[in-house]
Amino acid sequence: VNPAATAAVLIIGNEILSGKTQDANLKFLGESFARLGIVLAEARVIRDEPEVIAAVVNELRARYTYVFTTGGIGPTHDDLTAESIARAFGVELVVDEEARRRIATSGRELNAARLKMATVPKGATLIDNSVSLAPGFRIGNVFVLAGIPSIARAMFAAAEAELEGGRPILSESIDVYQREGDFAAALEAIAKRYPEVDIGSYPFSREGRLGASLVVRGTDPARVAAAMAEIRATLAPTG
Amino acid sequence: VNPAATAAVLIIGNEILSGKTQDANLKFLGESFARLGIVLAEARVIRDEPEVIAAVVNELRARYTYVFTTGGIGPTHDDLTAESIARAFGVELVVDEEARRRIATSGRELNAARLKMATVPKGATLIDNSVSLAPGFRIGNVFVLAGIPSIARAMFAAAEAELEGGRPILSESIDVYQREGDFAAALEAIAKRYPEVDIGSYPFSREGRLGASLVVRGTDPARVAAAMAEIRATLAPTG
Repeated sequence: VNPAATAAVLIIGNEILSGKTQDANLKFLGESFARLGIVLAEARVIRDEPEVIAAVVNELRARYTYVFTTGGIGPTHDDLTAESIARAFGVELVVDEEARRRIATSGRELNAARLKMATVPKGATLIDNSVSLAPGFRIGNVFVLAGIPSIARAMFAAAEAELEGGRPILSESIDVYQREGDFAAALEAIAKRYPEVDIGSYPFSREGRLGASLVVRGTDPARVAAAMAEIRATLAPTG
Repeated sequence: VNPAATAAVLIIGNEILSGKTQDANLKFLGESFARLGIVLAEARVIRDEPEVIAAVVNELRARYTYVFTTGGIGPTHDDLTAESIARAFGVELVVDEEARRRIATSGRELNAARLKMATVPKGATLIDNSVSLAPGFRIGNVFVLAGIPSIARAMFAAAEAELEGGRPILSESIDVYQREGDFAAALEAIAKRYPEVDIGSYPFSREGRLGASLVVRGTDPARVAAAMAEIRATLAPTG
């Protein structure tokens, strides 16, 4: 196990930044890393530009244990992730024969566009895709997933066995219908007594009622439970 | 007008990275920047850690025309954005008297937690909040918004008049029920004839049918329309 394992998510795609598309992968990836005991340290959303992608991949792969990218591995002209990652690693692009074989099983014409989906940076290994045919790939500590959420999930499941995390990061939460300004001091006092867990307060407004979700996260089940018990006793004694 | 205006969005909050909460601000901000003719170049999601927030704010404000942050300006111990931005700018935190006056109008006790919401980096100006009382603030080219989506939207509306963008970035799209691998070459040929617009293809699966959204974006209405007309004629002649 690797208790200090960290990760970054890199979401590649103009459609997310233009507001055309709502990202639907980060939440799933965040939950998955927590389950695996890997701290997701940051996420970035960048445009489909090879120089930018390559520079950011190099920055992130040097800084974190794992980097997961989503998007940009399809057959169209705006799918630039594979060539950008080859550039980042300073390797050439090659056709992976196993990927070509899988894509060919569709029976559809293996034209230049489809062959592009079998083209990966030299040295990459494939990440299986149980939903459609074209695989993702891994090179070094960089895992390259599709952007379509169902396929990104299938690829993450296929890659998961290659990750070495620590103890799962547990999370407990309770919703209270009180104002943060009224309980902030009491919550801070509890947070100071439990420095080994993260305590967060996330305000909401539901059907006109103000409240907050109080979240305790940590790897020690006993400390997470104890902190939550104190929060409950202090802020939601009737709950 | 500033046709070269760029922006970055900085989403501050452990709850987004842990998968606890789905971000609901980036899509809105992306749409807003497009309308204002400002290129949203990147977005980042980072943890509630002052050193990290300060370093990233300094990196982004040097690189882009505008930086918009969301999250971390409430009254609880995990709301660290104001102090982090003061650190980034090398200024002290001060109580803003107008912000204090607004927060006091609630009639609720103006305790230390609520006073924290009136505390901003020295030199900041307030961003009005028409939903609740506590304002956001602007310092230099950094605009600091709340994380709650309804409040983030209200603050953006209040700050919008201070932004100098260019011609609106227009977007047209059409959904086709064809496979990307079959139309990629034709689409690329069109994209090459319209270098001044961005043409993107975003695959989807709906009720078992594969297809793609084809999106044309650009500032010249005639060129956007012409590119879309070619796409339509080539890929969706019956549409």
